[in-house]
Amino acid sequence: MTKEQVEYLMKEFKDIALTDTDSLDKYGRDETEDLLFPPHIVLRPSKTEEISAILSYCNENKIPVTPSGARTGLSGGALPINGGVALSLEKMNKIINIDENNSQVITEPGVITQVLQNAVKEKGLFYPPDPASKGSCFIGGNIAENSGGPKAVKYGVTADYVLNLEVVLPNGEIIWTGANVLKNATGYNLTQLIVGSEGTLGIVTKIVLRLIPHPTDDMLMLVPFFDAKKACEAVAAIMKTGITPSGLEFMERDAIQWTLNNIPTIQMEIDERHEAHLLIEVDGFDENKLIEECEKIAEVLEQFETGDILFADSQAQKDKLWEVRRKVGEAVKSHSIYKEEDTVVPRFELPNLLSGVKAIGKKYGFKSVCYGHAGDGNLHVNIIKGALTDDQWNNELPLAIREIFTLTVKLGGTISGEHGIGLVQKSYMDIPFTNVSLQLMRDIKKIFDPNNILNPGKILI
Amino acid sequence: MTKEQVEYLMKEFKDIALTDTDSLDKYGRDETEDLLFPPHIVLRPSKTEEISAILSYCNENKIPVTPSGARTGLSGGALPINGGVALSLEKMNKIINIDENNSQVITEPGVITQVLQNAVKEKGLFYPPDPASKGSCFIGGNIAENSGGPKAVKYGVTADYVLNLEVVLPNGEIIWTGANVLKNATGYNLTQLIVGSEGTLGIVTKIVLRLIPHPTDDMLMLVPFFDAKKACEAVAAIMKTGITPSGLEFMERDAIQWTLNNIPTIQMEIDERHEAHLLIEVDGFDENKLIEECEKIAEVLEQFETGDILFADSQAQKDKLWEVRRKVGEAVKSHSIYKEEDTVVPRFELPNLLSGVKAIGKKYGFKSVCYGHAGDGNLHVNIIKGALTDDQWNNELPLAIREIFTLTVKLGGTISGEHGIGLVQKSYMDIPFTNVSLQLMRDIKKIFDPNNILNPGKILI
Repeated sequence: MTKEQVEYLMKEFKDIALTDTDSLDKYGRDETEDLLFPPHIVLRPSKTEEISAILSYCNENKIPVTPSGARTGLSGGALPINGGVALSLEKMNKIINIDENNSQVITEPGVITQVLQNAVKEKGLFYPPDPASKGSCFIGGNIAENSGGPKAVKYGVTADYVLNLEVVLPNGEIIWTGANVLKNATGYNLTQLIVGSEGTLGIVTKIVLRLIPHPTDDMLMLVPFFDAKKACEAVAAIMKTGITPSGLEFMERDAIQWTLNNIPTIQMEIDERHEAHLLIEVDGFDENKLIEECEKIAEVLEQFETGDILFADSQAQKDKLWEVRRKVGEAVKSHSIYKEEDTVVPRFELPNLLSGVKAIGKKYGFKSVCYGHAGDGNLHVNIIKGALTDDQWNNELPLAIREIFTLTVKLGGTISGEHGIGLVQKSYMDIPFTNVSLQLMRDIKKIFDPNNILNPGKILI
Repeated sequence: MTKEQVEYLMKEFKDIALTDTDSLDKYGRDETEDLLFPPHIVLRPSKTEEISAILSYCNENKIPVTPSGARTGLSGGALPINGGVALSLEKMNKIINIDENNSQVITEPGVITQVLQNAVKEKGLFYPPDPASKGSCFIGGNIAENSGGPKAVKYGVTADYVLNLEVVLPNGEIIWTGANVLKNATGYNLTQLIVGSEGTLGIVTKIVLRLIPHPTDDMLMLVPFFDAKKACEAVAAIMKTGITPSGLEFMERDAIQWTLNNIPTIQMEIDERHEAHLLIEVDGFDENKLIEECEKIAEVLEQFETGDILFADSQAQKDKLWEVRRKVGEAVKSHSIYKEEDTVVPRFELPNLLSGVKAIGKKYGFKSVCYGHAGDGNLHVNIIKGALTDDQWNNELPLAIREIFTLTVKLGGTISGEHGIGLVQKSYMDIPFTNVSLQLMRDIKKIFDPNNILNPGKILI
């Protein structure tokens, strides 16, 4: 991007432009490792039409535009790796309409997910997808990455709630992808093509989500296991009862212990003989039913050599346990230089994935801390740098990651469940897909973005 | 298609080819009006590799290939309008594996939907999407059209259950679109691009579906209304209670009466003062809970001037009521020449859609019989030829349909909820979509099928 182009945009969009070094640094980072790629300029539009004007100009001048949400992403999707414009959606933060009659909400992309959840909850409605970063991430970013979270095991992921999107294409044209309806058999599914496309096909400017009735009750239990693999095996056994928990989370000992070390306000003892814990939530509209479900789950767990099960007996205790779970990522990351992989397999294969990851770690000499959404077979593998040399970290580790992903795909899974491919996983896309499929994706990208201005260098090599 | 090409395929694929007139006629029809477009040859492969070989040859020689399932479609998707090859999937009718551990099934496309449902039910698992034609339609056709059915109001449509697809591309290449996992943030969503693409992008040869625990109980009630519009209004009121019925079906008086006339084995009296009926089902795992839900629904219905509610008191009576509902389409169709529109709106707009359709009918002088999945806002509008002249039918009616679809889109809806666009709705695609969106779809078609051999002339003009 030339100096003249920066100056033109500064003048043309002076009320929404930032070019100071602090801002460029801020918008040059997300939550992915310690990567920094500052843009040339940050623009913070508040209207669809402004975005259209910005994209038209950048498209004509082939200037890279990287959409930027709350920058909580874990695959580098929001990093402006080629400089250019960081297009922040933070000012597009209005919930436009909560339609109680149709159980839908229309929102702008810059609304914090939890703010949206709370707003619809006040009307008795429920928007379930709740990534760990729900208190800070934007709903637009959730759509870009097809985010999941603990509730996905019962309620599905972001994609399952998106009915219709207003999208600005790279040439500035504005389209709606679908209709505000629960079923749609009208042409190719542009809506689901945009969901999960990580801001590479268009900028989402309005979002229509379906909502469901909000459950009135929930119960939570924390279950320690002497053997981590048995915890994984218990997951499939629980699902086979016919009960679908609203959360079924797995944490290795280090994951939970490091988190507790990191939150001094939470007093909790972890028995060091316990290799892993499951955090299990059930929800619904009838407390007695939930008690029955918990009893049934506890019964199933008897075969898996657990320690004493902790049933949360107050809202405060539930909040505390969820806080621990939500802060695991942060705690693991603050502990060491790390790389996080977002593996996902059919849930019954989880024990095989876990033992495979550990065996690969042994071979390459790295330690990993694993946790994640076990009910969905979604295991976050955090590889810890620890005592590895820079050479091992930079040159050998990619081979180890390749082995982990190859195993994941062999087990019927894939290389990202909810974090996206972004920058840091794109060199592994040949593992889940053949070149024929990748070429289809490259061609789709070309249709939407012939000049390759929108989030270039993401998803595909 | 030349005579030599037909002869080549007859020789090359002699065990799976049909060219007799009866067969060509049979594969030249589906359930769409009285349309007939015979192919030059029918091929009935039983292996993915055979399909790949057929497509390779047809692609090189630019021969149209129309995929053919059970030919129960209502938008003409399976009609070989340019002749060429009708590629029947009927021999690919094996359920490959029911994976109880992961609650998934892998199946070929030529399995009858109900056969699949029954097979997984034996393992306590549930595949909910159940189009009215479930006893004859193929699961592959359901994927092509993104079929719905009565259960969609609670459980979603076909798209919501598809995890992964094996697809043969028009050039003969074979790909898998995704992975066998419940969450996936790995590149563009090729799976959902294929679902609902009506056999225009590739031939689906293997299907991985997620399954859920099968509910153990259900209850069914038939509710007569003096005023059809009030029946529509009641739908949104029921959904607002927080109860999500597993069926919420609307039938105008003529729809139910004509069906009863058509099924002499079912004795049931319809009071002629009742303009419409709702058929309401709830399901779950606890009979007492369902009784409570029925009571709550009945209470809500009191404000909407109903006649006496019939609660089905045996499985036989439930089967009977569902048979009536499922046979409405057939009965209406056997009554007169007709055209069926598959309108869908946000459910609260249903009363406005119904009264709009009736007003448009009055203006153009046609009678319509309406029924459908009211819980989803999906209204099947059957326009009856009755006393209309051929000139009115052929030249004026398209204007009326255009008005109906324009109203549908204005209400937030779209022109097909579950039947697809196929042949008979493609000239209306400019109503829900701008040319920018349509051009994206045309370009997507070109990526997958540059020679336009696969189901040409469908969805897009």
